[in-house]
Amino acid sequence: MRLSRYFLPILKEIPKEAEIVSHRLMLRAGMIRQQSAGIYSWLPLGKRVLDRVNAIVREEQNRAGAIEIMMPTIQSADLWMESGRYDDYGKEMLRIEDRQKRAMLYGPTNEEMVTDIFRSYVRSYKSLPLNLYHIQLKFRDEIRPRFGTMRSREFMMKDAYSFDIDKAAAVHSYNKMFVAYLRTFARLGLKAIPMRADTGPIGGDLSHEFIILASTGESEVFCHRDFMDFEIPGDDTDFDDVAGLQSTVDRWTSLYAATSEMHDADAFAAVPEHSKVSARGIEVGHIFYFGTKYSAPMKATVTGPDGKDHPVHMGSYGIGPTRLVPAIVEASHDEGGIIWPAGVAPFDAVIINMKAGDQACDAACEQVYAAMTAAGLDVLLDDTDERAGGKFATADLIGVPLQVIVGPRGIAAGEVEIKTRSTGERETLPLDAAINRLTATAG
Amino acid sequence: MRLSRYFLPILKEIPKEAEIVSHRLMLRAGMIRQQSAGIYSWLPLGKRVLDRVNAIVREEQNRAGAIEIMMPTIQSADLWMESGRYDDYGKEMLRIEDRQKRAMLYGPTNEEMVTDIFRSYVRSYKSLPLNLYHIQLKFRDEIRPRFGTMRSREFMMKDAYSFDIDKAAAVHSYNKMFVAYLRTFARLGLKAIPMRADTGPIGGDLSHEFIILASTGESEVFCHRDFMDFEIPGDDTDFDDVAGLQSTVDRWTSLYAATSEMHDADAFAAVPEHSKVSARGIEVGHIFYFGTKYSAPMKATVTGPDGKDHPVHMGSYGIGPTRLVPAIVEASHDEGGIIWPAGVAPFDAVIINMKAGDQACDAACEQVYAAMTAAGLDVLLDDTDERAGGKFATADLIGVPLQVIVGPRGIAAGEVEIKTRSTGERETLPLDAAINRLTATAG
Repeated sequence: MRLSRYFLPILKEIPKEAEIVSHRLMLRAGMIRQQSAGIYSWLPLGKRVLDRVNAIVREEQNRAGAIEIMMPTIQSADLWMESGRYDDYGKEMLRIEDRQKRAMLYGPTNEEMVTDIFRSYVRSYKSLPLNLYHIQLKFRDEIRPRFGTMRSREFMMKDAYSFDIDKAAAVHSYNKMFVAYLRTFARLGLKAIPMRADTGPIGGDLSHEFIILASTGESEVFCHRDFMDFEIPGDDTDFDDVAGLQSTVDRWTSLYAATSEMHDADAFAAVPEHSKVSARGIEVGHIFYFGTKYSAPMKATVTGPDGKDHPVHMGSYGIGPTRLVPAIVEASHDEGGIIWPAGVAPFDAVIINMKAGDQACDAACEQVYAAMTAAGLDVLLDDTDERAGGKFATADLIGVPLQVIVGPRGIAAGEVEIKTRSTGERETLPLDAAINRLTATAG
Repeated sequence: MRLSRYFLPILKEIPKEAEIVSHRLMLRAGMIRQQSAGIYSWLPLGKRVLDRVNAIVREEQNRAGAIEIMMPTIQSADLWMESGRYDDYGKEMLRIEDRQKRAMLYGPTNEEMVTDIFRSYVRSYKSLPLNLYHIQLKFRDEIRPRFGTMRSREFMMKDAYSFDIDKAAAVHSYNKMFVAYLRTFARLGLKAIPMRADTGPIGGDLSHEFIILASTGESEVFCHRDFMDFEIPGDDTDFDDVAGLQSTVDRWTSLYAATSEMHDADAFAAVPEHSKVSARGIEVGHIFYFGTKYSAPMKATVTGPDGKDHPVHMGSYGIGPTRLVPAIVEASHDEGGIIWPAGVAPFDAVIINMKAGDQACDAACEQVYAAMTAAGLDVLLDDTDERAGGKFATADLIGVPLQVIVGPRGIAAGEVEIKTRSTGERETLPLDAAINRLTATAG
């Protein structure tokens, strides 16, 4: 992508309304724009990062056996009356009347709708287990939306829903998502700790929040420091191995970790002093097992091996991609701007032409650009006529992993510079060697 | 994907509410489910097709230089008051009041919002041309939603918006989208004819609808038969070639083609009798140039080369992916079910195990499945214990391009059968040769 043809509206000033660093950096880097309170557009750079986050979320859901669907955003109120949540949900639910005067709503979550889908098709325990997910917009009419897309009203959620014949099977489904979440956050460059959590309006008796530690987090959390070094389950994880998954979950729940709602001061006191972490955290995922809370009133039953009808045991599993993006920025930035982990970076590299219009610089930039693009890399070529200082600042701000710096003096000597954004390390290389090095990074 | 672990709720009976073939087949094949009047869930098979349609739409938008963003679904009514369309839009607009009593709405289209984004960032003609698009849900509260996702209330739209300094530049932007649309529909396996069209509530004086001929179409259309054989612009199209694109558009608008609203009986009379086509059609795309209709009232201006402020000239360009899917089914099916064009098929092949549980059949199926998956193909393995006849009917119904049929008699002779869904052609091959043939189809 040539920057001269791209839409990257960098802000020079620090936006006043932004209280936390991720909100400031995402606005400055031209990633998002507020359209109304708590309602955002994702501009091109932001959309690219969001797509990459979604791709990782999707891959790990699929790997764990969940199947993707897409439910609509607008739901009938009838379904919520069946489950009994229509009145419970309160003012956070955006209630709508359509032209036929039917009571509708903008889905804040989809337990009712997915249960309705399930009950219309599935009759037998032989079709279980089943886990259906979608990555879809939700709306929660927060009284105080803030922190950019960290707590917005319209937001994207990956929500998965599992269906099983009994509690034991449902716990295995829960464990699959538990492990999928560990893998997902690790691939996003985040250290997320599963913590016992309150179940709130979703309900149920087993629930974990996945929390990343960050000083700007809205939750107060308490945990054992050793979680930081726990090993993440590998690519070769067998999601059908019931005992294997259970032992992974057991290990990840063996030490103290709780949000303030579930905090047990006495239990925490037993944690060795040097291992105590008492910090702020950002919730990036939340999983629930809630048994027959929805299936019983909504009559989502299957015939069991005993020939009788059983309400299915369900769980739900949420990750908010539009919150993950700022969470990643909170975890990975410096005074110059964002530092994207490679897995979610909007581009693999930016080529900085220090003197656009100079024949030798232009030619070298085009050569690097063509070679990297041909190797399947996503490259941004800064071919604008801004001065070099501004280009460097922009490259640091948008946080692309590699910067290829092409200037007239270097090119006269046949050389370009490669800067690694995360370390600040710079290396000067002959043009051909640089191209070889850069194209070798293609996956 | 193993069918035993998939969610493919095939319906045996023909649903009564479905009036047109695409709606019937999409319901029977378990692609979609109605949640409320005109509001659908996309089940796993449908979601796969929708994703493939979106991928093609996106590739061709990007190729033509449009840049992807994501605007939200919920908009402030204020913007629509600025443009003057808030009162005009009528009951199709879903109006919403949030908990703060602010007037909001579910976007039926995004001219206002994208103009607002543009005016907040762009100051100079040097940043033009610019074309921003998103693929996002829309809601239009149709009085009579029908035909499944062909005319639904909540639907997906790719809407692009171009910004230019003057009319001449805007017409070039229009031509880029015109050509991108020709390429998009061709890649989807559709023969779409651009027809002069009414501009309706979007406004402007230049507009084309892209129409595919189908007996179930809602529009009455009139055109010259030669359009059917016009050549589609190639992969090597240079979208910066102003004269070249204009000549393509000139050619594609040189013969008579109009929807009933724009029909000119006298002009049509001049078409040679054997070239006259008078038929029903489905609108699959609609493009508009509307000059300064939104930029003037909303003050979206840029400084021109003359140092003065100019309201930008705009166009908008819509394709409905959730309508394209049934349009493709209307155009490509037989009595057995759907016949997906290769570019949008949910799977590349289905392997039918005629006798699941038979050791030799299972082993051969696994071998083919592993080889095709390793080659990067998307394969559905029917490993269920349904009888062979049911499996054949399902494979035909869901319309996957290739069927690999593995039965005990064939395997005893070391052979499997490959059936091409579109032609019905069958060929029996030794297992190894079949694997070679199948993996050679990988792109």
